[in-house]
Amino acid sequence: MRISKLFGKTQRDVPAEADTISHQLLLRTGMISQVAAGVYSYLPLALRALKKIENIIRDEMDKAGGQELMLPVLQPIELWQRTGRDQSFGKGLFTLSDRRERKLVMGPTHEEVITDLVSRNVRSYRDLPLLLYQIQTKFRDEPRPRAGLLRVREFTMKDLYSFDTDEEGLARNYQKMTTAYQNIYSRCGLPVLQVEADSGAIGGKDSHEFMVIAESGEDEIIYCDSCKYAANVEKARTRAGEACPGCGSSLSSRRGIEVGHIFKLGTFLSEKLGAFFIDPDGVSRSITMGCYGIGLGRLLAAVIENSYDDKGIIWPVSIAPYHFYLCPLYREGSRVSEVAESLYSELKAAGLEVLFDDREESPGVKFNDADLLGIPFRLTISPRTLEKNSVELKRRSERETELVPLDEITERLEVLTRG
Amino acid sequence: MRISKLFGKTQRDVPAEADTISHQLLLRTGMISQVAAGVYSYLPLALRALKKIENIIRDEMDKAGGQELMLPVLQPIELWQRTGRDQSFGKGLFTLSDRRERKLVMGPTHEEVITDLVSRNVRSYRDLPLLLYQIQTKFRDEPRPRAGLLRVREFTMKDLYSFDTDEEGLARNYQKMTTAYQNIYSRCGLPVLQVEADSGAIGGKDSHEFMVIAESGEDEIIYCDSCKYAANVEKARTRAGEACPGCGSSLSSRRGIEVGHIFKLGTFLSEKLGAFFIDPDGVSRSITMGCYGIGLGRLLAAVIENSYDDKGIIWPVSIAPYHFYLCPLYREGSRVSEVAESLYSELKAAGLEVLFDDREESPGVKFNDADLLGIPFRLTISPRTLEKNSVELKRRSERETELVPLDEITERLEVLTRG
Repeated sequence: MRISKLFGKTQRDVPAEADTISHQLLLRTGMISQVAAGVYSYLPLALRALKKIENIIRDEMDKAGGQELMLPVLQPIELWQRTGRDQSFGKGLFTLSDRRERKLVMGPTHEEVITDLVSRNVRSYRDLPLLLYQIQTKFRDEPRPRAGLLRVREFTMKDLYSFDTDEEGLARNYQKMTTAYQNIYSRCGLPVLQVEADSGAIGGKDSHEFMVIAESGEDEIIYCDSCKYAANVEKARTRAGEACPGCGSSLSSRRGIEVGHIFKLGTFLSEKLGAFFIDPDGVSRSITMGCYGIGLGRLLAAVIENSYDDKGIIWPVSIAPYHFYLCPLYREGSRVSEVAESLYSELKAAGLEVLFDDREESPGVKFNDADLLGIPFRLTISPRTLEKNSVELKRRSERETELVPLDEITERLEVLTRG
Repeated sequence: MRISKLFGKTQRDVPAEADTISHQLLLRTGMISQVAAGVYSYLPLALRALKKIENIIRDEMDKAGGQELMLPVLQPIELWQRTGRDQSFGKGLFTLSDRRERKLVMGPTHEEVITDLVSRNVRSYRDLPLLLYQIQTKFRDEPRPRAGLLRVREFTMKDLYSFDTDEEGLARNYQKMTTAYQNIYSRCGLPVLQVEADSGAIGGKDSHEFMVIAESGEDEIIYCDSCKYAANVEKARTRAGEACPGCGSSLSSRRGIEVGHIFKLGTFLSEKLGAFFIDPDGVSRSITMGCYGIGLGRLLAAVIENSYDDKGIIWPVSIAPYHFYLCPLYREGSRVSEVAESLYSELKAAGLEVLFDDREESPGVKFNDADLLGIPFRLTISPRTLEKNSVELKRRSERETELVPLDEITERLEVLTRG
């Protein structure tokens, strides 16, 4: 992609309304734009990063045996009344009436719709277990949207639902999802802490959150360095400084961003929605459920909160919008322009993801944008590098540069994106 | 995918509520399930077909120079009041109030949001032209949802918006999109007619629809066999039997399904929303716009309306949920089971898309499901085919079968999916 054509402009000033690093950097890079409180447009660079996160998540869900489907945003309020969760979500639920005065809910989550669907497609224990998921837009009327993508009212979420014959089956799938989630965070370059959590409006018995430690986080976590016990303070009955319930050592506390939440729901929703199966003895029983959610936009913001410096974002290769920032420093009468154009074509033909800064700007402006956008590798072509028939290669996360001969560069870069 | 594990069941009976072929077949195959009037869940097979359509569309939009972004569903009513389109959409607009009593629109289309975004990111003629698109969920409160996915209230749509300095630029992009749309339909195996159309609530000057000829279509088209003039009767001033305005021949009429609609908007929206650019002479001018929409679910349904027989769907290879239906006819004491399992592993390892009917059902049940689901190629393994160390290959669209030796089958199938 040529920067001269790219939709979205970087800005030097820190926007006054942005209270967290990720919010500031997402606005300064021109990656997002606010439409209403807690409602954002994703510009092309942000969408590319989001799609990469989406693909990592899809891959891990498929590997775990998940089947992807797509449930609707609009849901009849009657479904929510059957489970009573119209009350527990309260004002967080966006509702509306259609032209026939039917009341509809804009799905904040999809337990009702999927359980109803499963009740009509599952008869026997032979149809279970089932892992069903979607990657789709959710709506929650948050009282205080804040911090850019960290707390919003409209967001893309992966939600998987597990359906089992019993608690043992649920425990197996809960463990499978825990592993899948850890794989996802690891592939996104994000260190997380798994903590005991409160089920809140979702309901159910056990639940765990995955937390990224960050000052901008809304949650307080207490944890034990000795036995690795960790819990959200909302859930924990102990406080920092007190004795760990696991081993008696002293508990510490930190702030964290919740980037995933998994729940053992049990049977309370399937009972209310009539989702039964016939067991091997011919007895009708309630399906045992779990649900497992990741907000994609919040994960994207958490990656930034976890990986930046004073110059801008530092993307991990796995979710960077582009891998290479091709940065020619033009000078009249030099071959820079010609070599840059030809290298750009060559890299594109090799299937590499290149952002080509084809603008006639100063080296300072270009380098600043390269750093701000956080593209993992910068390739500089100047009259000086061309004296050695080379390109200067620099990693965003390191200070050192190296010269790579032009006739070796494509092969070298292919290796970098594989690693 | 093993059919024994696949979520979604086929049914033999034609559902009473289904009035069109695509609606009947989508329900009988268990591909969709209704949640509210004009609101559906897509089960795994339907979503796979939809994703293939999505990828074809994305590919053609990218080739035409489009940049993908993602705009929100929730939009402040004030944006719609500025263009006056809150009135022209009328009751078709889903609206709601949030917890602070702010009135929001659920986007039926995104001209307001994107034009507002462009107004803040475009300064000069150098920033134009721009082609921006998204593939996203839209909401329209249709008075009469009907015919399954043909007329719904919630749907996935690709909407591209073009921004140019003048009418000539718009004409070029309009032509570019026309070509891209024809490529999309052709890749989906769908013959379409491009017709003159009415702009309706969207507004603007010129517009064209792409129509699939089908009895279940809601639109009436008049057309001329001689000069290929075609128009939606809502737009045309002439009727069937009258003289063609192009060449004077007699006009005929047919019913059609609209599978795409493109509009030359001109400058009325950019003027109202303040989307200007500075031209080379330093003069501020309104940006000239176009918009270009395709509903993905309707396209999927139109493919079925266009390609089926009395046994079920006949998917084109390009958008089939799976390419191969592997159908072992088990018999105790035979090698069928063992060979089928091993062939399934081999085909999956080769990256082929296989639906594996691993159920212990009769040949009749399996063949009926294979035909109903419309998978392009059926592979039957039976004691009889194994006598010749072969698999029986049959195209869904043909009667003939042929025996292919087991040691040649993978290579042969790879060629079929490429073609």
